[in-house]
Formats: sequence, structure tokens, C-alpha cells
Amino acid sequence: MLIVMKADATESEIKAVARVITEMGLRPHVLPGANRTAIGITGNQGPLDPTRFENMPGVAEAIRVTKPYKLITLDLRPEKTVVRVGDATIGGEELAIIAGPCAVESREQAFAVAEVVRRSGARFFRGGAFKPRTSPYAFQGLGEEALKIMAEVREAYGLRIVTEALDEHGVDLVERYGDVIQIGARNMQNFSLLKRVGRSHLPVLLKRGMAATLDEWLLAAEYIMAEGNYNVILCERGIRTFTQHSRNTLDLAAVPAVRRISHLPVIVDPSHGTGKNYMVTPLARAAVAVGADGLMVEVHHQPELALSDGSQALTPAQYEQLVSETRAIHELLMPVSA
Amino acid sequence: MLIVMKADATESEIKAVARVITEMGLRPHVLPGANRTAIGITGNQGPLDPTRFENMPGVAEAIRVTKPYKLITLDLRPEKTVVRVGDATIGGEELAIIAGPCAVESREQAFAVAEVVRRSGARFFRGGAFKPRTSPYAFQGLGEEALKIMAEVREAYGLRIVTEALDEHGVDLVERYGDVIQIGARNMQNFSLLKRVGRSHLPVLLKRGMAATLDEWLLAAEYIMAEGNYNVILCERGIRTFTQHSRNTLDLAAVPAVRRISHLPVIVDPSHGTGKNYMVTPLARAAVAVGADGLMVEVHHQPELALSDGSQALTPAQYEQLVSETRAIHELLMPVSA
Amino acid sequence: MLIVMKADATESEIKAVARVITEMGLRPHVLPGANRTAIGITGNQGPLDPTRFENMPGVAEAIRVTKPYKLITLDLRPEKTVVRVGDATIGGEELAIIAGPCAVESREQAFAVAEVVRRSGARFFRGGAFKPRTSPYAFQGLGEEALKIMAEVREAYGLRIVTEALDEHGVDLVERYGDVIQIGARNMQNFSLLKRVGRSHLPVLLKRGMAATLDEWLLAAEYIMAEGNYNVILCERGIRTFTQHSRNTLDLAAVPAVRRISHLPVIVDPSHGTGKNYMVTPLARAAVAVGADGLMVEVHHQPELALSDGSQALTPAQYEQLVSETRAIHELLMPVSA
Amino acid sequence: MLIVMKADATESEIKAVARVITEMGLRPHVLPGANRTAIGITGNQGPLDPTRFENMPGVAEAIRVTKPYKLITLDLRPEKTVVRVGDATIGGEELAIIAGPCAVESREQAFAVAEVVRRSGARFFRGGAFKPRTSPYAFQGLGEEALKIMAEVREAYGLRIVTEALDEHGVDLVERYGDVIQIGARNMQNFSLLKRVGRSHLPVLLKRGMAATLDEWLLAAEYIMAEGNYNVILCERGIRTFTQHSRNTLDLAAVPAVRRISHLPVIVDPSHGTGKNYMVTPLARAAVAVGADGLMVEVHHQPELALSDGSQALTPAQYEQLVSETRAIHELLMPVSA
Repeated sequence: MLIVMKADATESEIKAVARVITEMGLRPHVLPGANRTAIGITGNQGPLDPTRFENMPGVAEAIRVTKPYKLITLDLRPEKTVVRVGDATIGGEELAIIAGPCAVESREQAFAVAEVVRRSGARFFRGGAFKPRTSPYAFQGLGEEALKIMAEVREAYGLRIVTEALDEHGVDLVERYGDVIQIGARNMQNFSLLKRVGRSHLPVLLKRGMAATLDEWLLAAEYIMAEGNYNVILCERGIRTFTQHSRNTLDLAAVPAVRRISHLPVIVDPSHGTGKNYMVTPLARAAVAVGADGLMVEVHHQPELALSDGSQALTPAQYEQLVSETRAIHELLMPVSA
Repeated sequence: MLIVMKADATESEIKAVARVITEMGLRPHVLPGANRTAIGITGNQGPLDPTRFENMPGVAEAIRVTKPYKLITLDLRPEKTVVRVGDATIGGEELAIIAGPCAVESREQAFAVAEVVRRSGARFFRGGAFKPRTSPYAFQGLGEEALKIMAEVREAYGLRIVTEALDEHGVDLVERYGDVIQIGARNMQNFSLLKRVGRSHLPVLLKRGMAATLDEWLLAAEYIMAEGNYNVILCERGIRTFTQHSRNTLDLAAVPAVRRISHLPVIVDPSHGTGKNYMVTPLARAAVAVGADGLMVEVHHQPELALSDGSQALTPAQYEQLVSETRAIHELLMPVSA
Repeated sequence: MLIVMKADATESEIKAVARVITEMGLRPHVLPGANRTAIGITGNQGPLDPTRFENMPGVAEAIRVTKPYKLITLDLRPEKTVVRVGDATIGGEELAIIAGPCAVESREQAFAVAEVVRRSGARFFRGGAFKPRTSPYAFQGLGEEALKIMAEVREAYGLRIVTEALDEHGVDLVERYGDVIQIGARNMQNFSLLKRVGRSHLPVLLKRGMAATLDEWLLAAEYIMAEGNYNVILCERGIRTFTQHSRNTLDLAAVPAVRRISHLPVIVDPSHGTGKNYMVTPLARAAVAVGADGLMVEVHHQPELALSDGSQALTPAQYEQLVSETRAIHELLMPVSA
Repeated sequence: MLIVMKADATESEIKAVARVITEMGLRPHVLPGANRTAIGITGNQGPLDPTRFENMPGVAEAIRVTKPYKLITLDLRPEKTVVRVGDATIGGEELAIIAGPCAVESREQAFAVAEVVRRSGARFFRGGAFKPRTSPYAFQGLGEEALKIMAEVREAYGLRIVTEALDEHGVDLVERYGDVIQIGARNMQNFSLLKRVGRSHLPVLLKRGMAATLDEWLLAAEYIMAEGNYNVILCERGIRTFTQHSRNTLDLAAVPAVRRISHLPVIVDPSHGTGKNYMVTPLARAAVAVGADGLMVEVHHQPELALSDGSQALTPAQYEQLVSETRAIHELLMPVSA
């Protein structure tokens, strides 16, 4: 059930509704919007009686939810969620660019790449500390050491740190050193991990699983939100298909599809989405043109020496061209997406 | 084998090489380029001896082809093919827009839509005369009657007609009434049909099959070119995947992938590629941003009354917005793709 | 609409109903069954009025068809169709085995393989005369010469000939020399070709397209039946997926899925379905165990010298083992599938 | 690197090799086989020098591993691994049947189903305690309570308990109450969880991810084995494709494909593999016919009341038929697969 408050509902009316929900043994999710506040209810086993709420002061209407999700929907929040990370935003007017190496390999490498990222005007630095590698014998990341280096990058360049956690211990560490917790494609339905980040104070960047339907992806976000963390950013990163010319097939139709259902911001990762250096910039342009709120891109100062995913990393010069082209498209379309 | 002529090779030197190839019982394919002419050879069972050609006057080099295709490659023609249809072009500087109804339903409908298309500045009118419908009981198109209506549209509006042929008889008719023969996704590997259009004087728009790899698609184009018709336009129209939110998954990475191998122009069909009205314009923007040479779009003056595929057809107003947004992106990127 | 006649309806009552349908400008499809005859009606644009038929003598009921198919359904014929080819059957009690080389390469090769096929007790010989090759430069088959050789094989060994037609001209030739017309996966939605074989007196073996849904496949069969040819055999031959360990993914669930909807027999091709010699026999066993009516298998007396698809062809010894193992499973399950 | 010991190598020679490996800071994996022992080495960053081992007493040869996996391969252990769970086996001569409800719902339900399972002669009981549900609002399992019930089932019926763990805490609990830890499809690349079960004393049943390639699946097993747990059972449960007639597409070719590379046993889950009650038994027959070592099947005494996945659960009568048919095929093929 979803309670929509009147535009002029007072803070105490909102609290009163939330209190009733809590007293029923259920959980209220209060989401203030531009014009009105809505309150999602989770924890109920069956349908609730709307009349219980409809007569409470400040309540405009009580709506039964028939879809499998409640909190990610435009019904709950008609305007787009803007995730704020320090003074940077994802889902707002600026094009959010998250760039950096696949894995942090050394302090020197991280700083060299961060220099490039900062210069481009991007606000977010990405870098892997724990790498989910297909083979147990491949480079698995520097771990906490990498996180410490990234904390230094933040200090030095003012960039916000986006980095992946593979398990609950990893979440603890990202909470200590980072700014945004990334959940990778392989963990999109690791429900224990989703619940854990749902209890974090940090925003969560949720990558789409490589065979996830739209509903499965949105319900993974719902898992996070149901625990009380409403700062979720969706990230399309390509799905697995029969094609061979790219590592994954970037499903850009997912962007308008998400937009039609959900208030959550959605960004695109053309690096993993293609797996080929020469495709990254064209697909980044396409992602912005389709209406994505941002990009996640791999850059390396020496891609040929990268310890992982070197074949898809952009050189600094390529990356700068990507930023300039995608910004131009973003500006051109501002009235469109606004 | 592929013979690259010197930049200053004379017409008669080129002819001499072609004559030797013909005398060997093989077929020469002479493709003039901006700086030099190349001659592809088909019909040989095994490898040819390069020395046979290397000493002929005007020959720069004779190259063994190790890939499965010969004529579609950048090795044969390093610059992009520009297909000319009257004074309109596909693959050149202008963004080629091919628009019209899924099926021609009546003279009134065709003219109403053509009016919209003409007004937008597009140069090509599309309309189905023979519809490849999944069910034998669905509307199959007006046949020759539709072709006659489209010939009238050409007269009235100066638009070039792009229309599908399903079999050899259909090709005869399109040759009589139309300007570009479309080969649909279901017929991409109908090799008898490919050979027939390979002997046509009209350009061929070759849609990608819904489970076709890049190689299979390019080899289908090679079938056409091997018969002597070098005016082939590739069209990405979505592949079949597990996703449910769109009818097909538009594989925009196919555009840079084709570009890296082939000189043929490549356009995108966001209507069939998504199957949803609300996705067409965002994906059309993405297609132009990724570098496509053109768009193929379904427009209907009354989509709710369309006899086929109404749910994906744009209204005139939506179509005009698509044209304006995609043109703006195309102009912005001109220096990029040039 | 579908007219079910009473069990004791007379021949002249059936004819009277068919005559009324014809007089309405529609087409009656009379399918006699074990207990009663049913008559499918095609050609109507909208729904028909059942009362028109319900009062005619011998009519049990008139049923509106709400699914996209009419003639392939168990509603029309509750018992399985048994396709008879001479004294051999497909869909009956015996396990139908169709074996032979991918392509007929020479009289010697065809006879050497036919000898093996005959010895195994199989009743059908397969061999390609016209090969739909991905590349225009690959071996395309011996054409009519191959058909003549297969006609000789029939004379010499009493095997029935199953061979593919790629176009209408090919159908003419298969009608002259062969016994069953195969429509390949690439042509499953070549609707002009389907209509042509729908007017043939020969049975049609319809392979599933590599990205075809169940409905699309069944509707392709419906195209054939709507023209009056009710002897259609469906053949599952693998679908295209992301997997790399086999060339296609054999979708054995398609067998019970077809069974639940249609009276048409369904066989399985484990050779194209896997593309790997070592997988053919295990998957053939699985196909029979799942309930398929038969198998289509590639055998070559010298697979390492085959001009096409050698890597999946069985040697004579492997083929004999396949026949013995699959027959044993078929016998074991006879009471199950009966 | 892989060290193959001579057939007559002594225990102390084997230990000496293992000690050298340990002293090098690497990890030895000693796998005794029918005729000889092999020792896999993990932990090395680059290639090792074979001469270091080749001259040690008892060593037959030192082999460089060029594939991405080491421990799952037939190179390491040429004969099939037989996983022993009490007196039951998986991978040996008997057909392993693991049956039970999707989720344990109550003591009554578990006992009712266990009664059926025991009567069929199956040796393993499956039941979910922690259910990985797509929606956070769906029934998530009874948790530890379910595990306690299953421990009672083991006492009462002598069945071995196979149950899924979703996270490290779940592994602790399964180790306390169960016999085999199941890793579900969604967690196939949850590498932290794989490492944890790699340190368990219980065998691990590893389901294939729904978009996992063969290599990714085998490398997930390698993750477990690299931690020292060599009792891994692979389970094919269907992959995600475009098809709609079944929930997943059961990829039975995966069984011979695994067999060709790995010594690990492989079973098939036709319940999740199809998602449709009427397909389960035919596909179970196919799975045994293709050579699977066992089956994992959902049974419910009242499928229409099941709290999860009821539409695919077999009734007791259907289950008994499945067991009888699949056993008959297994016995028929014993000489084949042995």
C-alpha cells in the first residue's frame, strides 16, 4: 500500500501516519517529493485496508499496489530521484561521469588516472579494490590497500569514490573509505548483500545482471530500498546475447524503460557494455542521447599494461574526447530530458 | 584475391587486369575509390597466385583474402560507399531518413503520411506492399496496388520509395515501381533472393536477421555484391534476446562494428528495434549518436487505426520531434563521423 | 472457426458443410480423425457466426478459434498426425530415422552412406542438393545432379529421400526426384516458399528457425496447412543462445511443448543441434527419451573429407551405435508415449 | 602446474612433493586416482619450472597447465569423481535422485513429501530454508526452523539433506543441520561464498548460472576446489533464452560438454529447467538419457498449495512415474555411461 499525503499536509500529520504503520508492525517509507509526500508500506503479508488511512488528517489517498514493486515506482515519487554525493549529483541536471581504472593497481597509477579524470571535470572516481574475477587465479585486486589509495585520491582531487563491494565485509570497508557502494552484475541477485547495503548510509550503484529482466533489476533495487536506503542508482552494463562482436550487448532501451516505471536515476557503462576500446565512445554518445543520467567509464593511463580489462580501457586522450562529445549531446538535449 | 591498382593506373590498365580475370573464368569486381581503384576477384575455388597480377602495368599489389568476405571490406574500398538514389544519398554527409507507414493501406493513408514525411525534409518514403506476417491469417499487404500508390507518392512528393520484396516476383515489381529494394530480417539468409537482388539495378537495403551474427549479416551483403550489385545499405533492426521490455534489443554496437570492417553504409530502424512507440525517439537519437548513416522509422497519421504494427508507429507530431532532435545530434557530430 | 462433426456424420453431411464454406468464399479443411471429422475454416476476415453451422445435419459443434492458429491444433485433430511416405511413417509407432550426408558430394559417397543407412534399418535418406551456405564462396551443393543420385539411392536401397528446397524452382525439382521436402531453419519464415510447399503433394519437414518462438514455428506450419498440405513434420534443430560449447542449443522442451498444442509429429536433429560429433549420440538419446517421433542425423563414410559440416557428421560405426541406443530407449518408452 | 606421480609412487614420495610445494609458498592439491595420484598446484603468480619436480622420486611428469582451470580437469583426475554422502553416492553407478519441496513450509509438509521420496528409493531430500526470491515481499523461507525440520527428516527417513545457503551465515547453519550445501544459480559467481564453501567439509552442489558459459561454471567449481574442497557436484538447471514456452531452456548438451573436460559429476534439475509441471518428466528422461549422474526434482504433496514454484512441482504420483521411467533408462544405458 501507498499513502499519498495532501500537498499541504504538515510534518506532524506525516509522522502520525508513519506511527500508525509502525504500530501495525509494518514499515513506513517516507519519500518527500516536489509537491507532496508519499509513504510506502512494506512488511504486510496480505492486502491492507485503505479506509484505515483515508480518514487520517493530511491523507489524500491510499493506493493498493498491484505491481511487484512499491518503492521504486513513479506512483510513490513522480519526480526523478537526485542522488547527492557531497556537492555532486546523479539524476539531476549535470551529466554524471564516473571514471577511473578497472582496478586500482598502485598509488602512482591511481593518481595518474585521477589527474586525467579531475581535469575532465568529472566528479566521480571509480576503481576496483576487490575484483570479481571469473578465474580464482586471476588478479583479485589490492583490497583494503586500494581503498586507502582511493581515500587519498579523494583528498587530493576532490573526486567522490565509487567502488565495488563483493560481500558484507567489503561493504564495511567501502563505508569506511568510499562514497558510493557499487554492486556488480554478478551480485545483482545476491539478496543478503542487497539487504546489507540497504542498511548503509551510502548511496548504492546497482549494476544490471547480465541476464536480468527489467523487473528483476528493479526488484533488486526494491530489496535495497525496502531496508531504508533510497539512494539507489541503476547502471545498465550490457546483457549476454549470442553476438560475438562485443563482449556484451548494451541494451539502451532499458533507459527509457526504467524511466517509464521508476524515479531512480539510471546510468550506462559502455566499457563493460562493449568490452572493446573502439566502441566505448560511440556507445557513450548513444547512452547520453538515449537519456542516461550519467556514464561509468574505464580509463587507464597505460591501457596496454592494465592488470584487468585493458582491452576496453580508454587512453586519457580518448577519454577526453568522450567527455567533450557526450557533454555536447547532453547540453543539446537538456530541454528534452528535463 | 584483391588487386589494388596504383593511384595513377589508367583506365586501360584497369580493364586489362579485369580481362585477365575474366579469361581465367573468374569474375572481376572493379570498385573505384577516392585515391585508387581496387578489383575484387570471385569465383575461384582455391587460392590464386599473386605473381600473375603483380607484374601487370598499373598494379600496386595483389592481396590474398583470408577473411570469409572480400567485397564488403575496407581492404577493397577504404572510404565509405555512398549510395545514390536520384539526388538523395545514404552514407554521405546528410542523415538519411526513410519514413512512412508499416503497410500501405490506402491512397489516402499513403498521401497523408507522405505529406508529413516530405514536410520533415526526409528524402525517402517507406511503405509495405507485401507484409511478411507471422500468421497466415493476418493482413498481408495490398500487393501491386500498394506499389502503384507509392509510385504516385514519388510523383507527387519527390520522395524515393523503399519497399520490401519477399520473393523473386516481388523483386520484379519493386524494380518496376520503387527505388530501393528492402530485404527483411526473415529473408536475410534467403540466398536465392539475395542472388536475385544482386542482379538488380536498384540499391538494396539489407536488414539484419534477428539472430544474425555480424559475419552472417556481412556475408549476406557479400552474396548481393558477388552478383555485381555494389549498392547495399545495411540496416540494424534489433536482435532477439531474453528481454521483455522491448520487442527486440537494438544492438547499436553493430554500427561501429560494421564501420570497422566494411565500407557499406549502415542505418538503424528504431521502430522494429523496440516495438514500442515511446522508445522510438530516444533510440533514434542514440542511433544517430552512435554514428548511423540514417534512420528507418514508422509513421502513421492515425497509429491507433493502423492495420499492422500500430503500437510502434509515431504520430506526425512525434515524428517531427524525432527528426528535429536527430538532425541536431547529426550536425553536432558531423566533424566526428567525417 | 472449427466445425466438429458428430461421430456418426455421413460423408455427404461432411461434404455439405464443406460446400457451404466454399460458397461463402472461404476454404474448408477437412481433417478426418479416429473418432470424428473436423473441418477448419480459413479465409475469413472477421469472426463467423456459429449458428450458421450448428443446425446443419451431422454437426456436433462450431467452435470459435481464439488462438492465432487453427489447423495445427489438437482442437482440430485430437490424435497425432501420422505422415506416411510409401510404407514408412513419421509420427506413428516406429522411430523415424532420417540419415545421410550433409551434402551429396558424389555417387560413390551417396551410395557408401546409403549402404550404412539401409543396414541400420532406417527408412529415410537425407542429403543436400542445394546447400544454404553462410558464405557465397562456400560449396553450394551439386544441385539437380545430387537429386538424380538420390533418386538412384531410392531405387537401389528402397530409402525415402528427404532433401531441402531453397526456392520455388528447388521445390519443382524435389517434387520430381524426392519424397519429403525439407524447409531449412533460415527459410522458416520465407512465407512465399511456405505457400508453395503448401500446394505440393509431398510431405514437408519444417525445421525450426534459429530464433523462432514456438508460436512462430507453429504458425509457419499453419502457413503450409492453410494451402491444403496437411503432411507437415516439425523438426527441432537447436536455437541460437550465448553458449559456446555447442553450435546451437538443442531445445528439447520444444517437443512436449509442441505435443501439448499440436497433432503434428516432431523430430529432432542432434547434428545441427550441437554441431559437435561427440555430442550427437547423447543428444539423440535424449531426444528419443523426451518423446520425439524421430531423428535426423548426419552420417558420412569419411567425415574428415566432408565438403560441409564434417565436424558434426558421425562415422558409420558411431551411427550404428546411435541407432541401437535410441531404438532401445524408444522401445522401453513405447507405452509412455503411446 | 600439475604433477603426475608414478603408479607405484609411495605415500612418502607424494608427501615429499607436497612439502616442496608448500615450502615454495604455494598450495598442493593431492588427488588420488584409480591408477595414480596427481598433485595440482595453485597460488603461483607465473609459470613454474617443471625441472624442479621432474627429478624427484616417484614423479612421472610435471605438466604446464595452459587452460584457465587446473583442478576440475581430466588431466588431474582421469576417472570420474564419486561424491560420497554417507552411504549414498553421486557420480557412481547409481542414479542419484534428489527430491523434495521447493521450500520447507512446515513439519507436516516436509514429512509428507519425505515419505514419498523415501518410498521411491531416492537417497536425497531437498528443501529450501532460505529462498532467493526475486521480490523482497515474497515468502523467503522458514530459515533455521526449516533446517531443523530437515534434520528430523534425516533421522526419520535416512535421507541425506541437500539445501541452499545464500550467504556465509547460511553456510554455518547448513554445516550444522545438512549434508550437501547447494549454491544457487544467482550465486554461481558470488566468489566470497564460493571461497567459504571451499573451506567446508560438506560436498557442494553448484548450480549453473542462468547466463553462465561452460568455462564460467567450471571456474566457479575451480574456486571451490582451490580452497581444498574437492567434492563438487555440478547441476545444469536451464539457461535464459528468448523462448517463452518454458521458464528456462535446459541445455542438456552441457552434460557431455562437462564430461569431456572434467571429472566432476553433473546432475540436471528439470523442475527449474522448465518451470512447467508437464515438462518435468520428459526432460528428466532426457537428462538421464544424455548421461547425467542424477536428477534434482521438486515434489509437493499438494502442489496447488505450495508457497513457491507450485506450478512446476510434481505430485507424488507424477514423481513416482518419473523415478520409474528414469531408472529404466539409466539401467538400459549403464554399459554406455560406464
